[in-house]
Amino acid sequence: MATIALDAVGGDHAPDQIVLGAAEAIAAYDNVKIVLLGPSDLVKESLGRCNVSEGARLSIVHAPDIVDMGESPTRSFRQKKESSIRVGLELVKSGQAHAFVSAGNTGAVMTASTLVLGRINNVERPAIATIMPSKTGPFVMLDMGASVDSRPSHLSQFAVMGSHYAQLILGSKNPKVGLLNIGEEVEKGNQVTQATYELLSAHPGINFIGNVEGKHVLSGVADVVVADGFVGNSMLKFGEGAAELFFDFFKNEAKTNWLALIGLLLLRRSLKQFKKHYDFSEYGGAPLLGLNGVSVVAHGRSNANAIKNAVRQAVASVESQIVENMARAMA
Amino acid sequence: MATIALDAVGGDHAPDQIVLGAAEAIAAYDNVKIVLLGPSDLVKESLGRCNVSEGARLSIVHAPDIVDMGESPTRSFRQKKESSIRVGLELVKSGQAHAFVSAGNTGAVMTASTLVLGRINNVERPAIATIMPSKTGPFVMLDMGASVDSRPSHLSQFAVMGSHYAQLILGSKNPKVGLLNIGEEVEKGNQVTQATYELLSAHPGINFIGNVEGKHVLSGVADVVVADGFVGNSMLKFGEGAAELFFDFFKNEAKTNWLALIGLLLLRRSLKQFKKHYDFSEYGGAPLLGLNGVSVVAHGRSNANAIKNAVRQAVASVESQIVENMARAMA
Repeated sequence: MATIALDAVGGDHAPDQIVLGAAEAIAAYDNVKIVLLGPSDLVKESLGRCNVSEGARLSIVHAPDIVDMGESPTRSFRQKKESSIRVGLELVKSGQAHAFVSAGNTGAVMTASTLVLGRINNVERPAIATIMPSKTGPFVMLDMGASVDSRPSHLSQFAVMGSHYAQLILGSKNPKVGLLNIGEEVEKGNQVTQATYELLSAHPGINFIGNVEGKHVLSGVADVVVADGFVGNSMLKFGEGAAELFFDFFKNEAKTNWLALIGLLLLRRSLKQFKKHYDFSEYGGAPLLGLNGVSVVAHGRSNANAIKNAVRQAVASVESQIVENMARAMA
Repeated sequence: MATIALDAVGGDHAPDQIVLGAAEAIAAYDNVKIVLLGPSDLVKESLGRCNVSEGARLSIVHAPDIVDMGESPTRSFRQKKESSIRVGLELVKSGQAHAFVSAGNTGAVMTASTLVLGRINNVERPAIATIMPSKTGPFVMLDMGASVDSRPSHLSQFAVMGSHYAQLILGSKNPKVGLLNIGEEVEKGNQVTQATYELLSAHPGINFIGNVEGKHVLSGVADVVVADGFVGNSMLKFGEGAAELFFDFFKNEAKTNWLALIGLLLLRRSLKQFKKHYDFSEYGGAPLLGLNGVSVVAHGRSNANAIKNAVRQAVASVESQIVENMARAMA
């Protein structure tokens, strides 16, 4: 049985979609207990609205402070000692929970996770590892925003951690590791990628396949794609913006053009399949690799389904002993 | 009359699509003369295949060397003195042509453009400025890959050049300038964006609106988006990869599922409209801002239509006296 501490008051659709996601996760997975964190009156109200009951596998731990989405990570950590984020992570630290999951302020979750759980020995910086869809199946991309101004040694560590993560979670054998770059040739890129290329080429512990361009990432050329957090985050968000633009356009067409409406209705099954295969939320949240405990960052826009998947992701990380494996890999 | 030196042997679909694009441009725009550059036998053969004739407005200048797509920019510059790229840029330098357009090796075009044309006074680095589509209309994004390891002073110059470019080419009045970042708050980002934020906030010559996230770029929140070339290039290419993934999926669905096929047929008009509005190639090539001459980079995958649009883009840059305007702005 894995106990997941779930931030009930973090994310654009908190608390109701979080509560519903918790209920879905409990229904779907036998081996999960969930502890909801937040001001208990607020969480109880949400349970009532959602027709979800507390029970042996769903409980509430009172955490009166709420960290807002735009709040400064360090300030909120200092000032809001009883926030859902800090209290949830303390449960993991003390062994009362196996993992923490939050769709709240990502910066605040990263900062608090690092400060409460601490880094694994030798790890210079943690990284957010996202499972992304590609033409040939899922792959791991990191870092997605935990670490900016990454040095080559950081990126090299991300490659090692990402490689082990892909083995544990995706079952990749000898995963192909690519370095995100603006060209495939060895000499391409900026100072950091050029120096990182050398480090990765000489690294005995990974299967480095060289530079990978942004346009090939989604073709599935690599099982692990390594990037600085600024670049990874910008890319991912741009992709989200592009998808939104696309779907908004066709939603609008359906309103004004009946041929388009019928066309979209006929495509419904295909669109659903596309979404199932390529929707990031289906892949759940992204763990912070390199910490002494499991902390999973879910998308701010997570709905109940995404929360359920993030919980599944957290359970998978716990069951595959991700922390112990990372510690061994970095020893 | 604007004379455009066009690289006939650069790009994935050279020379035929380049030659056809030249013919389309001449048919579409009365005020354009085109000089095709490349090995003359090769270019003549292509003209024959494409049923295009030389004439008063379409001529060939022999340039025997061809720079391949993967070739090193500096090496090819030194070793291939009679390449289509170098010869074309020399025509601009000597005043025999008003602008150079190439869909070839972007790195080689950038390097040769900088070395042959030279930088405008005070400009530390040139930038590739791409016109991109958004929900509310086109905007300018720079740099798209000319400059990596950009310092804050470089990004600040990109903001000024981009702002003037938006005024000249898009007719934006007092264009809103945004800094690409991984969060909207002032303190977000890496060391370079944090320092750049301060520079832009204090800059009297631009209308700085603050940080802009990748997912909002395509909503049209800013008329000019400033980024380091590594980030801009990675983002754009990721977007291309995502679009390709999407269209490939539905093409495949149409082959295996007749409901999807009919749906797509009914959506044909909408898809065309989407493409017209959002296809980058409709916006032509991207000029290198900051140089003493007009040099336009077209996409490596450019077809005839994209080449025609890149020629139009070059003519617009010439007619709006972009070089003189940039020189004034940077004085």
